[in-house]
Amino acid sequence: MATRWGLCGAGKISHDFSVAMKTLPPGDHQIVAVAARSLERAREFAKKHSIPKAYGSYEELASDPEIDMVYLGVLHTEHWRLGLLVLQAGKNMLCEKPFAMNSREVGDLIAASKKSNVFLMEAIWSRCFPLHREVRRLLAEDAIGDIKLVKASFGSPQLHIPRSVEKELGGGALLDIGVYTLQFVLMVFNGERPESIHATGVLLNSGVDESMVVVMKFARNRLAFCFFSIAVSLPNDATISGTKGTIRVLGPMHCPTTLEVNGKTTQYPLPEPSLPLNFTNSTGLRYEAEEVRQCLLKGLKESPRMPLSESALLTEVMDECRKQVGVVFNQDSQ
Amino acid sequence: MATRWGLCGAGKISHDFSVAMKTLPPGDHQIVAVAARSLERAREFAKKHSIPKAYGSYEELASDPEIDMVYLGVLHTEHWRLGLLVLQAGKNMLCEKPFAMNSREVGDLIAASKKSNVFLMEAIWSRCFPLHREVRRLLAEDAIGDIKLVKASFGSPQLHIPRSVEKELGGGALLDIGVYTLQFVLMVFNGERPESIHATGVLLNSGVDESMVVVMKFARNRLAFCFFSIAVSLPNDATISGTKGTIRVLGPMHCPTTLEVNGKTTQYPLPEPSLPLNFTNSTGLRYEAEEVRQCLLKGLKESPRMPLSESALLTEVMDECRKQVGVVFNQDSQ
Repeated sequence: MATRWGLCGAGKISHDFSVAMKTLPPGDHQIVAVAARSLERAREFAKKHSIPKAYGSYEELASDPEIDMVYLGVLHTEHWRLGLLVLQAGKNMLCEKPFAMNSREVGDLIAASKKSNVFLMEAIWSRCFPLHREVRRLLAEDAIGDIKLVKASFGSPQLHIPRSVEKELGGGALLDIGVYTLQFVLMVFNGERPESIHATGVLLNSGVDESMVVVMKFARNRLAFCFFSIAVSLPNDATISGTKGTIRVLGPMHCPTTLEVNGKTTQYPLPEPSLPLNFTNSTGLRYEAEEVRQCLLKGLKESPRMPLSESALLTEVMDECRKQVGVVFNQDSQ
Repeated sequence: MATRWGLCGAGKISHDFSVAMKTLPPGDHQIVAVAARSLERAREFAKKHSIPKAYGSYEELASDPEIDMVYLGVLHTEHWRLGLLVLQAGKNMLCEKPFAMNSREVGDLIAASKKSNVFLMEAIWSRCFPLHREVRRLLAEDAIGDIKLVKASFGSPQLHIPRSVEKELGGGALLDIGVYTLQFVLMVFNGERPESIHATGVLLNSGVDESMVVVMKFARNRLAFCFFSIAVSLPNDATISGTKGTIRVLGPMHCPTTLEVNGKTTQYPLPEPSLPLNFTNSTGLRYEAEEVRQCLLKGLKESPRMPLSESALLTEVMDECRKQVGVVFNQDSQ
């Protein structure tokens, strides 16, 4: 039986998600409804992607009994409010990253999922890529010896995009792209808590972070650092340096198709999209959709690839980074 | 008239320096003497490199009236003692990096050079490479817009080398290779003092640093960071990210021959050595020898490429990094 999806949000990422879905067997995944703030917008989206139902309110979507799983692809600042709506309606949910604006909000979402006994996952799609499965396998096999240093970076000039720079819209490099570099580090260290975190950053006039360097120290003399910026282009890649070798995830690190292990390169090609995409390599969203399906089939309430405990830790790390560089959202004082 | 050099130390770097000298016109540079702890060792070195005089003590070299310029290529921990000997004897000096063990020692060397009114330069050979002249020109011309982020890294597994790991020998990644990454950052910011410095590192059992990540913030929202390790291989390169483009100094960053500006690569080839070298690209030591000669011809007491104020700042930054990660040398308590 197909997993029946409802899309909460008819924006760019929902578009790409729908295109990615078309690369999966229709017997496995169906998008049965889409909701947007306006019915017109939802209808337009539904028509474009051949989705049977369109709703002009998120409440209608949340209460549609035909939906197994909601994909929440709205603005960061709306994740908490709409996420709670969906979870409290008893629906499983895949929530776009960042999970929410801070640990308090993420805690509320996790608590709501447990109370409703539904599946919940932060949509860190990177972790579901086949390449990442191989990285995890190599690390589990100790293929590069003891890990000494992990590095991840992502820089993309997007100061012209309101969503990226305005505080009220949840702007800043950290929440939008830094999150990918930090989740990579936590993935390598398998959810271990860093012993120390130090963030140095520079802010835009709007009060959100333009660029940041985050250094973490883990037990047993292991270092990690991330740097990211919405002002300049930076390599979008990640490297794990071990005593016996090096694993490199080449750009784009957050949706990767090229792995280099001790200089040897392997490609993990993606299916071609049937419509133009908004974001890089977005047909790779198929992997997280399939991960969600497999979890549901097993009766799991969270994904082992991105457990809720790790989403909580990731958010804690981001809270700490923001605190150190002085980014305060309205949500932090509530 | 040729600049008449005396070599203080007959180790690996003096070997490479002598080989590099042979790529310069003999009418410009002559090595007239070499001194080592043992006369036998000095004689052997002199024979190999056709140097007229060999001394079994550094005092003899310092007082040789035929020498214009001493090249100090001894162990880090000996720079202060022998440097003072040379400078107080009224000789000009090019002192291998790191200049000395800490700011106190460097201050003593600088003071001694001023008192004797002689030329003094820390042998940050990187800065004398033709490629670096081009980097400075590009920065002066604002070729990549406003600088936002500077990154430099250097990692080379050398835990098997006593000089690299033992505290009594001045070991640790920072003083040996980290210094190259830090000097690069200070070069880009033209000797500006960072507003903040934060170092995270891990130590070897001997108490010196195995690896470090150093993050610096400069005025006007500019970030820089360096990472270096003597435990693992890391890219030995540097990147300057600006609002209008990117300058990359490809590996080996500390003695570079490949520059990439907005994706366009230029090569700066080095002359071939006449004898096997100990270190990478060491015929490039010729550039600092020639820089020293040009300074002497102009009557300068320091080099504009590596002014003493910048050596002092570089040492201060290294002192601060060591303090933050907990590397304390015996010299620090004297």
